[in-house]
Amino acid sequence: MSKLSLVDDAFLRLESRRQPLHIGMLMLFEPPADAPPDFAARLAERLGKSVQAVPPFNQRLAQRRGLHYWQEDDDFDLAHHFVHMSLPKPGRIRELLAVVSRVHSVHLDRAYPLWRMYLIEGLEDGRIAVYLKIHHSVVDGVAGIRMLMKSMSNDRAVSAEMPPPWEVGAASNKMQAMPIPVPAVEGFSALKLMAREGVNAAMPVIRRVRQTLREFRNGDPDIALAGEAPRSLLNSKLSATRRFAAQQYSTPRMRAVGKAAGATLNDVVLAMCGGALRRYLLSLGQLPDKPLIAGVPISIRRDDTAFGNEVAFTIAHLATNVEDPLERLQAIKRCMDKNKERLQAFSPAQVMAYAATMLMPGALNMLFGRSQHNALGSVVVSHVPGPREDIYWQGARLTGLYPASLLFDTLALNITVISRHDYVDFGLIACRKSVPQMQRLLDYLEDELAALEARVGIVASRAVTSAVPATPATSSGKPPAAPANKRPATRRKPVSRKEPA
Amino acid sequence: MSKLSLVDDAFLRLESRRQPLHIGMLMLFEPPADAPPDFAARLAERLGKSVQAVPPFNQRLAQRRGLHYWQEDDDFDLAHHFVHMSLPKPGRIRELLAVVSRVHSVHLDRAYPLWRMYLIEGLEDGRIAVYLKIHHSVVDGVAGIRMLMKSMSNDRAVSAEMPPPWEVGAASNKMQAMPIPVPAVEGFSALKLMAREGVNAAMPVIRRVRQTLREFRNGDPDIALAGEAPRSLLNSKLSATRRFAAQQYSTPRMRAVGKAAGATLNDVVLAMCGGALRRYLLSLGQLPDKPLIAGVPISIRRDDTAFGNEVAFTIAHLATNVEDPLERLQAIKRCMDKNKERLQAFSPAQVMAYAATMLMPGALNMLFGRSQHNALGSVVVSHVPGPREDIYWQGARLTGLYPASLLFDTLALNITVISRHDYVDFGLIACRKSVPQMQRLLDYLEDELAALEARVGIVASRAVTSAVPATPATSSGKPPAAPANKRPATRRKPVSRKEPA
Repeated sequence: MSKLSLVDDAFLRLESRRQPLHIGMLMLFEPPADAPPDFAARLAERLGKSVQAVPPFNQRLAQRRGLHYWQEDDDFDLAHHFVHMSLPKPGRIRELLAVVSRVHSVHLDRAYPLWRMYLIEGLEDGRIAVYLKIHHSVVDGVAGIRMLMKSMSNDRAVSAEMPPPWEVGAASNKMQAMPIPVPAVEGFSALKLMAREGVNAAMPVIRRVRQTLREFRNGDPDIALAGEAPRSLLNSKLSATRRFAAQQYSTPRMRAVGKAAGATLNDVVLAMCGGALRRYLLSLGQLPDKPLIAGVPISIRRDDTAFGNEVAFTIAHLATNVEDPLERLQAIKRCMDKNKERLQAFSPAQVMAYAATMLMPGALNMLFGRSQHNALGSVVVSHVPGPREDIYWQGARLTGLYPASLLFDTLALNITVISRHDYVDFGLIACRKSVPQMQRLLDYLEDELAALEARVGIVASRAVTSAVPATPATSSGKPPAAPANKRPATRRKPVSRKEPA
Repeated sequence: MSKLSLVDDAFLRLESRRQPLHIGMLMLFEPPADAPPDFAARLAERLGKSVQAVPPFNQRLAQRRGLHYWQEDDDFDLAHHFVHMSLPKPGRIRELLAVVSRVHSVHLDRAYPLWRMYLIEGLEDGRIAVYLKIHHSVVDGVAGIRMLMKSMSNDRAVSAEMPPPWEVGAASNKMQAMPIPVPAVEGFSALKLMAREGVNAAMPVIRRVRQTLREFRNGDPDIALAGEAPRSLLNSKLSATRRFAAQQYSTPRMRAVGKAAGATLNDVVLAMCGGALRRYLLSLGQLPDKPLIAGVPISIRRDDTAFGNEVAFTIAHLATNVEDPLERLQAIKRCMDKNKERLQAFSPAQVMAYAATMLMPGALNMLFGRSQHNALGSVVVSHVPGPREDIYWQGARLTGLYPASLLFDTLALNITVISRHDYVDFGLIACRKSVPQMQRLLDYLEDELAALEARVGIVASRAVTSAVPATPATSSGKPPAAPANKRPATRRKPVSRKEPA
């Protein structure tokens, strides 16, 4: 029996009926060209016989004197955890997203180890989908991706012989993270870390906080603060129902825009999100005057082998008040550059302490005397590095890796992005009720990328007309079956936008 | 806006993470012989366009000053409520039961009207399945069946033109019931009713309670009392995960046993349940010495048109301490006869008050000074009358109507039975974790029916060997595709027993 860390425990205690706190990952795989038609069914049968689970997959919660512990499940029941599903015809991506939306809305049962994996067949293009769901008290997003990678290989033949993730497990059982700002918890962790580093470590943090606030008060437009976000529908109370949407955009295309504008890939991600949200809120007549504020987690993990994960939040505005796409990208870049500059000299503990202080709305308001009518933030945009080469699982090539993150009440949208060598995979999760027709953001992201290309003078391989929603491949429901790396400079649309309205 | 009744409200307040309080109904339909192969897909598409919902299907919860109200959902979102699914190949009943088990485990979202309907295709025998899930605060089982029947017809052609259930709605918006003993709530309702009938109505109830206890104390083996159930695994703490199992048995076969033994169809249902539970607990080495106690709801509905439903509980022992099947049936019959005799002279209010008093463990223990180590009951066995003729929905013939009821903590198994003209459909719902391999009860039910036939001298159309579990049709996963009414005297196995272990 091992006791949960304070942070991991918080994810159990903060969980509620409308706020499940697991994370998910939708993976798309392309079977080998010579695969039999029942490839998925055979795979499901084979995996269903792999009933030996290792930590953390065989650990369930135990409670003693109010504290949570992990203990080995002596009654491990693979049929509860591994589920074989099929899409109804025609098996478009919209049917897949509808299934993942439903499954992601559901709590994990604490009587069992806190994960489930769904093997989904029936996609019309012959690919198979895997959706893995795991509680955030077990693993964070970055560690989760690594854990998955341990059951994959860059050699197709080797991958076909590898055991499933639950028989491979994690390198270390120590896993924690903060992908979402939870000020109280994060503040506590930071304090603990700071205590370890000594009192002197605190001074630069305090000085930096003061300086940031001073700059903001002096009207520096490149400073974004938590608690300064304008209220919008993104700050709605959550329902218990989620909508998941996913789409990938060409990495070379996004990098080219970044290069032309002197910005990073992450700046381009944020600019696309800002532009897409501006279009979305405009279409609803609900765009606030002030720019939306994004919580942007940055990894401060130094040790690349352990599962221990320390993530701090920076705050960026998304320049949604700016009309021109390139100006938006530049404004976001300036904001992020200032963020990085501020954090550069800090130790991990100092970064966390700084982030925690900046996120604590009470503290800021006290120092600040500002309005309570604003929200802590508008949206969380995470960007996590994924594999940088072709990779295979059970003999099938990975063609998409879409994260489905978690939502906290009054933060009704999360955009998590995984960048790989060929594609940047966007996974959007939202409250179905309070962010209506959220899947339209997928079109707007594409429109924004195209508009950026036009603005920096890149002639894209497709017609760029940002006023006309780009619909062809997806609305007909036919993602191209061609391998992704054949046309790396163009958009591939394996994941489409429209669920049944 | 209409306020919820006290009883309906209780179903919201008693709901918890491990204890969702919706009920479900699995329906199997046989498309017409000349149906196109995409019958289900076309049906799904057509129904998906029927976006006009009427009460109770368009009503969602509102809360004001701590009270619950129903109000019309001005943002009705059919895609949330109506879901099209497909089974993975081979599409056996075991795949269907696995899907229904998963879906039934999930809470309904209170931000929406409290129902969902799943149209499930992909059954290898060409039938289509519909699983309807609705919160018990909206409708009880009996009213739910009637509501469904309103969108069906005994004329196939007529049925094909009828709107879906959510466009038909309920006759009345007043719906309530108590299919599960909730003493505190039921006691309160009873008191309210008694108050209406005057104080004099209470005296016969009190006299009857006293007499029953006296008889029990004098050792009458035909009296069963709540609170006298021996502890067994059926009294486990619930997990959040359910297993659903379903099977149908020939009505004529069961009636013939009843006739030969001078018992009712309901007595035969209870005897089959008792015998199956005895076999199940014996196989686990966990059969208690004292007989299991079943809560058996009896309808005291006088008005057949309104949705208002008054259900009282009687308590029956299941004679699980008796080895001989016929002796078990006779013992159960004597117990049920005494129950009926006791209640005959009562008004509905008196029946409820009597049942509530008998169910109140505190009250009984006070009067009684008995052990606290016993459980309130072992299992709930409900028997609800279904349609008595062939009936059609959207042009397809109904061939099975399996209820999935709800569980309360420490009552980890519910058996609900719907009797129709050709088959008696058993729906079993249990906590997956605490009632291991519950689906084996389906075999034991059949074994018990066969053993009863042998004991009363009926030569069944199949070999009766109760020591050998009857497995052929189901373990091969091939339910016969022949219509149910072709061989009414034999068991049909459209719903099989084994989910992946």
